[in-house]
Amino acid sequence: MLSYTFTEDKEFPLYEQLYQRIKEDIIERRLEPHSPLPSKRSLAKHLSISLTTVENAYNQLVSEGYVYPIYKKGYYVSNVQNVPMNTVRDDYLPEQLRVDKDKNGHSRLYIGDKTYTEMYMGTDNRTDYFADFSSNASDPATFPFSTWAKLNREILSTEHVKLMTNSPSNGMVELRYAIAEYLHQFRGIDVFPDNIVIGAGTETLYSILVQLLGFDKVYGVEDPGYEKISQMLESSNIKTARIPLDEYGVMPRELMKHNVNVIHTTPSHHFPTGITMPISRRHELLKWANADDTTYDDEANRFIMSVDRDDKYIIEDDYDSEFRLSGRPIPSLTSIDNSEKVIYMNTFTKSLASTIRISYMILPDHLRDRYYEKLSFYSCPVSTFEQMTLTRFISEGYYEKHINRMRTASRKKRDLLLKSIKSSPIAAFSEISEEQSGLHFILKISLGIPDTTFVSRCLENGINISPISKHSFMINYSSVPLDRIEEAVRRMAECAL
Amino acid sequence: MLSYTFTEDKEFPLYEQLYQRIKEDIIERRLEPHSPLPSKRSLAKHLSISLTTVENAYNQLVSEGYVYPIYKKGYYVSNVQNVPMNTVRDDYLPEQLRVDKDKNGHSRLYIGDKTYTEMYMGTDNRTDYFADFSSNASDPATFPFSTWAKLNREILSTEHVKLMTNSPSNGMVELRYAIAEYLHQFRGIDVFPDNIVIGAGTETLYSILVQLLGFDKVYGVEDPGYEKISQMLESSNIKTARIPLDEYGVMPRELMKHNVNVIHTTPSHHFPTGITMPISRRHELLKWANADDTTYDDEANRFIMSVDRDDKYIIEDDYDSEFRLSGRPIPSLTSIDNSEKVIYMNTFTKSLASTIRISYMILPDHLRDRYYEKLSFYSCPVSTFEQMTLTRFISEGYYEKHINRMRTASRKKRDLLLKSIKSSPIAAFSEISEEQSGLHFILKISLGIPDTTFVSRCLENGINISPISKHSFMINYSSVPLDRIEEAVRRMAECAL
Repeated sequence: MLSYTFTEDKEFPLYEQLYQRIKEDIIERRLEPHSPLPSKRSLAKHLSISLTTVENAYNQLVSEGYVYPIYKKGYYVSNVQNVPMNTVRDDYLPEQLRVDKDKNGHSRLYIGDKTYTEMYMGTDNRTDYFADFSSNASDPATFPFSTWAKLNREILSTEHVKLMTNSPSNGMVELRYAIAEYLHQFRGIDVFPDNIVIGAGTETLYSILVQLLGFDKVYGVEDPGYEKISQMLESSNIKTARIPLDEYGVMPRELMKHNVNVIHTTPSHHFPTGITMPISRRHELLKWANADDTTYDDEANRFIMSVDRDDKYIIEDDYDSEFRLSGRPIPSLTSIDNSEKVIYMNTFTKSLASTIRISYMILPDHLRDRYYEKLSFYSCPVSTFEQMTLTRFISEGYYEKHINRMRTASRKKRDLLLKSIKSSPIAAFSEISEEQSGLHFILKISLGIPDTTFVSRCLENGINISPISKHSFMINYSSVPLDRIEEAVRRMAECAL
Repeated sequence: MLSYTFTEDKEFPLYEQLYQRIKEDIIERRLEPHSPLPSKRSLAKHLSISLTTVENAYNQLVSEGYVYPIYKKGYYVSNVQNVPMNTVRDDYLPEQLRVDKDKNGHSRLYIGDKTYTEMYMGTDNRTDYFADFSSNASDPATFPFSTWAKLNREILSTEHVKLMTNSPSNGMVELRYAIAEYLHQFRGIDVFPDNIVIGAGTETLYSILVQLLGFDKVYGVEDPGYEKISQMLESSNIKTARIPLDEYGVMPRELMKHNVNVIHTTPSHHFPTGITMPISRRHELLKWANADDTTYDDEANRFIMSVDRDDKYIIEDDYDSEFRLSGRPIPSLTSIDNSEKVIYMNTFTKSLASTIRISYMILPDHLRDRYYEKLSFYSCPVSTFEQMTLTRFISEGYYEKHINRMRTASRKKRDLLLKSIKSSPIAAFSEISEEQSGLHFILKISLGIPDTTFVSRCLENGINISPISKHSFMINYSSVPLDRIEEAVRRMAECAL
């Protein structure tokens, strides 16, 4: 029979001491897996404690899985190999945490003598680079804080009822309307606001899209391309196919080869290569989407279907159309699609701020109908407060001005970067491509040192830079302030040589 | 051979006229499916037009799927039964849309003579009820607009860098920290901020959760319960099981019967019945989650596993814990779970505003680790602007004050509603339950008319009310202003008699 002695301790009642001791015996294998525990009554008698105390201890052990009951037989020891040892959350004891007032009189959560912030903030992702060429964050210098604050203030003081009214699942009609106007004027896309769905970033839009198009479809992603798209899809157990590109972009032949149903593509400006898909390839893609994949039946002297055109779609990701620094814009796929095959996606995370999570997609009519029928039970993930601010920002003309200012700022940064590189000692080993993108370019350096050494030397000097292939690096300058560019290039050159 | 005549029209170039005519012939079956079209060269000669014109027309037909090419053979007519007729987007002609200045000089999208707003806003979901007892929207009278505006202004003028810094995928550490403090002080839950994941409503949290727990698991939902949960899961092709309740809530026996892996439950206050799960049932649920589902092997005289405890979880949805008007709060499941089996979910959409989309969940340690490893590539769907405002709102004590004010306002509304019903002619036929919830109650009326007649009469009188079962109606008073309550009850009584 189990023999334990107990201490008198108000903090640890008897049942908890008993529970702890039995638990230890189980964990340390002093009690065999699947052996029976003494009955509650006999253990209570043996230890001279109350039956309730034993009951409480046994219940706790059962609820944590250390012990299992067999109906009308009693209690048995679990095999603790099946109990993950991290269920013993000793590092979680409540006494580690306490709330106290800080010097400003605000309540703070303390862990020992330090607040959580003091203990953990230092271990967060480093964000104190001198220049971060791998971030898509926005430069605080270019965000229109005062306009945004003004619109915010106006809305918060006059629009109480609207701010508290739940928006439709696809977003407030006013915002969809403002976006439709903008697309008509600046992108040559004509769309009814009803076909627009507002999301909180590509993630939430994709989550809606796969529910609309099917989890059982094959989704093609550009290779190379945005890794995040395939990460999202694969993380949701969705079949993806990596589609290689030629100099015109996605190859329809490859789509057929992989039995692709839905292709995610960036025709106006492929990331990271910068390919702009020519109009001929765009038509070929639409043709692919509009045809059943067929095999030729010699006997019948005609084609028979192998993949159904009804399940084929093109997702046109127009993420940076606002930023092209040169070249005539090519008509979007969606504007030349007469067959309801293109889903257009765009986002304000690049053009406004990466931290304001508003994006949108345009659904063809039949998908719009399916959306309203099947998915309008969802709540729109974007708050009405920000939807309303953005609506005014667009419809009162601030967005257009902001884009122009951003373009100018980007061009200045790019020009200074290129000039600095050209006049630096690395000029002779460097090659630059994709410099018209307006958000990033690709720097190829024939280094005398391994790429990894270069990257880590840069890091030591406060420069964050991402390799994309051998000797090639992505220079994303959106978050780097103009006045740090010359110094950043100087440091990079130092690290390269 | 196809014979067409063309008009000279700058708006419709030749190739477009040709394309239109052939398309019409195909749609109206004047051209047989799978019959060959004339070669481009011969058709050009026959119609005395240029080869390019024919090429352009054929290309357009191919890209829209009316025609398919066979390599080295020529062009063939598609079977237009495979072409959904709504691909002919005649209602979509760009000329319907134009942009013009309105009287304030802002650009507006016009459809004919009307702006989109004028044409379509009236057809949107009706939101002009005198009293909407079926809405979970917040009452503008109780939202702290001036405090929110003040915090907003401060942040927008001083926190430029932070506002432009991408937050970690699980939300800004400052907000998670403020939530941890709040939970410690007011809910008796001790949690490290690292275990908290911020989402934009239950939807985005669930989307993360199923990726974490598995798409192949069986998710149990309470029946009756929140329909939205099962809608979301089923819309993502996830297997759900409807779990009946007894007077204590979810029955572990039923979970075993349905081979449930993950159960979504609202133990502190079941919706809509209002059941509060007693502590004994809570322990039973934890026991269920901690045990392999087993069958007894007589020969070996022990249990063998049939469902793995490692795949079992409880999602504790604590959606309205702030609002209980009476009764001692029962410790949350998560606070008595020592075995990392409970995922706690809560939201600010009830306690602050349904239109500010911020919610959160607490992951047990091993799921937190899995989250950081596999899903931290996601962007947090909530903007930093609102995360920062909410952080200050909580940590500077405004949230606590707001909750108290909301509770008082809710109590007042409830008391007035109950008093009005008691003194109305329907009192004799009415029965009220669930009136301690603080957000809604259930009104049972023994009507002399069908429920549907009652509901539609109410609607005609500006009262929106949802039946939940025979003669029972959900009275959700969160969005109804206090000064409309007496009149709303008067109208309801009129409709009932």
